Amino acid sequence: MSRRPVPFSEQPLLHFYASRLENVKTFIRKSACEGFLITNLDNIRYLTGFTGSSGILLITGKETFFITDFRYKEQAEKELKQGDIIIAKEDIIKTIKTLSQKTAVRILGLEASLPYALFRNLSKRGLHVRPYDGVIERLRTVKDTFELERIKEAVQLAEAAFLSVRPHIKHGVRERAIALRLEEKLKKNGCRKIPFDIIVASGPHAAMPHAKPTERKISPGDFIIVDWGGEADGYYSDMTRTLLVKGGGLREKKKIYQTVLKANRRALASVLPGKRSRDVDLSAREVIKKAGYGQYFGHATGHGVGLQVHELPRITWAKSEIIRENMIFTIEPGIYVPGLGGVRIEDMVVVRPVRPTVLTTLPKQLDIIT
Amino acid sequence: MSRRPVPFSEQPLLHFYASRLENVKTFIRKSACEGFLITNLDNIRYLTGFTGSSGILLITGKETFFITDFRYKEQAEKELKQGDIIIAKEDIIKTIKTLSQKTAVRILGLEASLPYALFRNLSKRGLHVRPYDGVIERLRTVKDTFELERIKEAVQLAEAAFLSVRPHIKHGVRERAIALRLEEKLKKNGCRKIPFDIIVASGPHAAMPHAKPTERKISPGDFIIVDWGGEADGYYSDMTRTLLVKGGGLREKKKIYQTVLKANRRALASVLPGKRSRDVDLSAREVIKKAGYGQYFGHATGHGVGLQVHELPRITWAKSEIIRENMIFTIEPGIYVPGLGGVRIEDMVVVRPVRPTVLTTLPKQLDIIT
Repeated sequence: MSRRPVPFSEQPLLHFYASRLENVKTFIRKSACEGFLITNLDNIRYLTGFTGSSGILLITGKETFFITDFRYKEQAEKELKQGDIIIAKEDIIKTIKTLSQKTAVRILGLEASLPYALFRNLSKRGLHVRPYDGVIERLRTVKDTFELERIKEAVQLAEAAFLSVRPHIKHGVRERAIALRLEEKLKKNGCRKIPFDIIVASGPHAAMPHAKPTERKISPGDFIIVDWGGEADGYYSDMTRTLLVKGGGLREKKKIYQTVLKANRRALASVLPGKRSRDVDLSAREVIKKAGYGQYFGHATGHGVGLQVHELPRITWAKSEIIRENMIFTIEPGIYVPGLGGVRIEDMVVVRPVRPTVLTTLPKQLDIIT
Repeated sequence: MSRRPVPFSEQPLLHFYASRLENVKTFIRKSACEGFLITNLDNIRYLTGFTGSSGILLITGKETFFITDFRYKEQAEKELKQGDIIIAKEDIIKTIKTLSQKTAVRILGLEASLPYALFRNLSKRGLHVRPYDGVIERLRTVKDTFELERIKEAVQLAEAAFLSVRPHIKHGVRERAIALRLEEKLKKNGCRKIPFDIIVASGPHAAMPHAKPTERKISPGDFIIVDWGGEADGYYSDMTRTLLVKGGGLREKKKIYQTVLKANRRALASVLPGKRSRDVDLSAREVIKKAGYGQYFGHATGHGVGLQVHELPRITWAKSEIIRENMIFTIEPGIYVPGLGGVRIEDMVVVRPVRPTVLTTLPKQLDIIT
């Protein structure tokens, strides 16, 4: 067991981590369990700062244990903002059991997202466990100022990369070449990873909301959907712009674009604390329906962004929750017409008391490539 | 429901997929269940060719259903090598239940790796389920010739990238710059993704088996561990080379390097069908122990590589299984001395009847940077 002295430069950070942990402890106090086992790595990072790919966090009333193996010892010592480091040998279940007993945990809360096999192995070994849905994920929906700053940076990095690649998006260039150039730029600018495979979908491909870049060349009349994101200190950004190459059918294409843009603006304007997320979704959806494209907008209007690029809240008609101040999510209505192509315009927004702050600053007027 | 005609060019591929599916059906026949639900996306890709990020596969005695949502419809139609496509609306549990009833599935097998929450939701809705550990993962350990060719390509791409970056690995260059250059080269050469964040760990960082590249500059006396991989058609490669910069303590460093190299060779030579994986691990481990570095080799000797970069079999002292022909795994002994640095030499090997084929061809003699 070891606990490292936190360097002076990191001390301002500590209160963020302390306050996140405090929220978990409040949850424990109000629940039927005396301890909570956190298995989701993003949740572990959120609560401790640990960025490695193997570890489990056990939070009890008073103590916090970070359990990992030999390979992550040095990293844990370097990164962990709170908790004692326990290096488990082979049998991690045994380690969890011993620590639970030591700290008088009778019922151990689990994240319902944990693999069934781990749930079973814990139960088999006599631990009294109780899975809960999305406890930490719900805490993560509301961002603190440290997180907001990181996300802003991730937006700026993504926007700068797009602007430098924009001149290369033209007739005759392959989708994949554009995606590659954008990714390179993001990495060179300092993103250590990218949140998802960049989408560059042109012409008929743009009708697939999640198309992968192909060897197809940009051609006259194409819509080109570019969907990408940046990263800063583990926090992501996510944005989409759609360009149009001069060509046939301009009138309908303009109509589709303007409809999506209107839907995007309507939804952004509707974002307020206390509002239901379903109503934000509907603000966008109604614009598209009214224009006659309702059947071509099959996905949700938005999703939270943070340590994961898709996280809570979901901005969708299917499920609803209350929008709260300092939530950060995307607004990304789209229209996808098989054969013809598609348009999506995606911004990121922070919920504020009077009006939301739109983080994405790239222009949204239709960019026509001649 | 839809089933697409398979283009002529893909038909030679189909028998690989058919034979993989046949293995699952054999499992179902021998088990207590009449159907099997596959939730792991790599397993779904292995059985159907679908590369998207959302979908569930239901295999019953005679039928195969691929259940996904609207967003992945076009992609599924394009990629799926077998099975009928079902586009589920909101309630995927209901879809699974209806299909199970239609095909007379009384007990539905599950992958024990599925999230606990999904297990619970299926059970709650009256489905009689039974989780099994690693069924498809075990099938995947033995590669067919299609897979072998992809993995070979992934090795070649990774080696070519390394060779082109090698001249830039020198005194004064930052770890991160090397990692970035290597990643760019991999992507430019055709890898659509890389299997893991490239490790470039120099000097004391090399003592951490999973160090992340930092802004540290390569300095005299450094060991530099470079651990990276390529990708071809979803299949990965994984390899490590360690370089040394001229500087102090050359004698001990050479000894450490030669010890790891000997362990690597000894383990490679020990790979044979029918052998226990523990014995392969021990072949490497004993060399390192004998040289007095036993305590500095804390990880397993190797792991399978395929659609995941870490998959079964595990080549470790802790668990054992029988090595089978056409398994593909790494051999990667290492020595990590806190403060001083570390060495790892990692190759990929295919199990063959008489002697294994080592896929990695990069030289292993100590490469000293002057």
